[in-house]
Amino acid sequence: MTTVGIVGGGQLGRMLALAGVPLGVRCVCLEPGADPPAAAVADVVRGAYGDRTALGELARRCDVVTVELEHVDVDGLAWLAERVPVRPGPAAVALAQDRLLEKQALQDAGVATAAFATAGPSPRGFPGGTIVKRRTGGYDGRGQVRVDGPVDVGAVEAELGGPCIAEAVVAFSREVSVIAARGLDGAVACYPVVENHHVGGILRETVAPAAGADQVAAEQLVANLLEAWSYVGVLAVELFEVEGRLVANEVAPRVHNSGHWTIEGAVTSQFEQHLRAICGLPLGDPSPRGHSAMVNLIGVLPPVADLLAVPGAHVHLYGKAPRPARKIGHVTVHASGPAERDARLARVREIVG
Amino acid sequence: MTTVGIVGGGQLGRMLALAGVPLGVRCVCLEPGADPPAAAVADVVRGAYGDRTALGELARRCDVVTVELEHVDVDGLAWLAERVPVRPGPAAVALAQDRLLEKQALQDAGVATAAFATAGPSPRGFPGGTIVKRRTGGYDGRGQVRVDGPVDVGAVEAELGGPCIAEAVVAFSREVSVIAARGLDGAVACYPVVENHHVGGILRETVAPAAGADQVAAEQLVANLLEAWSYVGVLAVELFEVEGRLVANEVAPRVHNSGHWTIEGAVTSQFEQHLRAICGLPLGDPSPRGHSAMVNLIGVLPPVADLLAVPGAHVHLYGKAPRPARKIGHVTVHASGPAERDARLARVREIVG
Repeated sequence: MTTVGIVGGGQLGRMLALAGVPLGVRCVCLEPGADPPAAAVADVVRGAYGDRTALGELARRCDVVTVELEHVDVDGLAWLAERVPVRPGPAAVALAQDRLLEKQALQDAGVATAAFATAGPSPRGFPGGTIVKRRTGGYDGRGQVRVDGPVDVGAVEAELGGPCIAEAVVAFSREVSVIAARGLDGAVACYPVVENHHVGGILRETVAPAAGADQVAAEQLVANLLEAWSYVGVLAVELFEVEGRLVANEVAPRVHNSGHWTIEGAVTSQFEQHLRAICGLPLGDPSPRGHSAMVNLIGVLPPVADLLAVPGAHVHLYGKAPRPARKIGHVTVHASGPAERDARLARVREIVG
Repeated sequence: MTTVGIVGGGQLGRMLALAGVPLGVRCVCLEPGADPPAAAVADVVRGAYGDRTALGELARRCDVVTVELEHVDVDGLAWLAERVPVRPGPAAVALAQDRLLEKQALQDAGVATAAFATAGPSPRGFPGGTIVKRRTGGYDGRGQVRVDGPVDVGAVEAELGGPCIAEAVVAFSREVSVIAARGLDGAVACYPVVENHHVGGILRETVAPAAGADQVAAEQLVANLLEAWSYVGVLAVELFEVEGRLVANEVAPRVHNSGHWTIEGAVTSQFEQHLRAICGLPLGDPSPRGHSAMVNLIGVLPPVADLLAVPGAHVHLYGKAPRPARKIGHVTVHASGPAERDARLARVREIVG
């Protein structure tokens, strides 16, 4: 039996651990909080993400270690990587922690991004508007501010409390994402491009596959990144569609909320795929099965029996207490065609409210 | 959160517990052995199936109790049922423990069975041959003997060590099974009839759906049983096809090995379906998704990486040490059509050996 260490014990760790059980893969999570979502299926080492004692225990107990979030202690991860394989490696995780390094790495790999700037006062701003974002630590729409017209990055940095990057607002037609995996042997498997709907910076819905997306371009883009970074595991890239072109917004070096539909909607789920990749097993088929949509359950738990009464609906709860803006579960609906999928999605939306 | 007690902690308990996690259903197993398969996902109360102290703990901790095997202590189950809902009820489990009561109950519900006899010497035997089976305790082909010509049931009882039933050998064209669930509200959902291949009395392969099966007759048959027994949960019926007619062989008051393909091959898996039923939730859609086949891993573990390299293959290991004739896992292959499914099945067969 293979034992996989996971830095983080949230819902992504929980779903990784669930996918591991049938494969004979046991997961051990490192998590500072009590009773994390992953504890229902995984062992838990309690400690901060950078705690050397806890990391040492993880190294001793595990054959390979991965992350379920990018906001971990990279020095700790590098220390761990001297003792046990860490996949994806600390460098890829470090990239995803810093919006400036991330943008530069994307451009180095030939991937288009929004125009950006960092240094000091930038009084003109970008023509279509500017979003100033914390280089590190922001997520789910937090740690950023939009400015139209002149921008004083230094002033915003003082407001947001740390170094920032100024990005041009992208006049996108829709937000999509692509998830792919690279195996230990270099094989790449790419899921279909999906369409994402955010509200207040938090993902609400994913529709899979995204109708009319440029799958070929997305696959090339993510394959370039996987190769350039010698990446092993699942990588997610959030993208803007701009007049038919794909512009990268950000990457996540892990399984991703916009890939939860793959549990029922793809031949191989992103969770199993990630475990296959980091354990040196052959990648699975990423093809979609029919048409799917995922709705996040945020803040409040709707009546589960009502959700389960929707044909083709699958409920995934994370074992978290409801709290405003907190992702406590998701619902996937699938169907053989997009019209039926959309009807079922509409019904789930009514119930979720 | 609902807590479900399971009498038994084997692979069926493990897969029930896995299905429960996303639904917010926590499982607690009662199991005498150390480190049972279900322990990877469920809490374990250690004790014999009839142990009143252990059953009392199960009653205190659980909202509803079910079984994952029929060879449990029915008196203990009845005792439990006075303290917590037990679904399916002890009477249905008792039926499945005794081949004579089972045959009589099937006939009472209007379901055809093989001709059978019990009492004393039966020197003529049945014209096409006789199988003498222990009324209780036999499974996977154990506890039975075939006799052609005259039969002395009493002598065979002495040999097999207990009361027996003499059944006419059924000249079947193939073995099939049907699995259905009845909800707390009386709703019934039936999976497609599947084709089963046994070797030495142990299930080797299931092909789903079974080509050319009489689905309407099978659904009527199992619905009759569910109604007659006021059954709640998943019920499996093993059947013989005899000149196009269905003849019941035996029932299992639980999720069933011939339904493992539903994890990937049906909209709702038999494990989720059983939990939905016994927890009073709406039943899910039992429709198949494409064409599937399941191969049991018996005795030895083939190279997992080779299995995972087969397109559309899903590996399910039970966390059991390999041992002759022991079911240690299964592999499901699925495909959009039967020809592709059969090609993948052939590849899995080669690997499994």
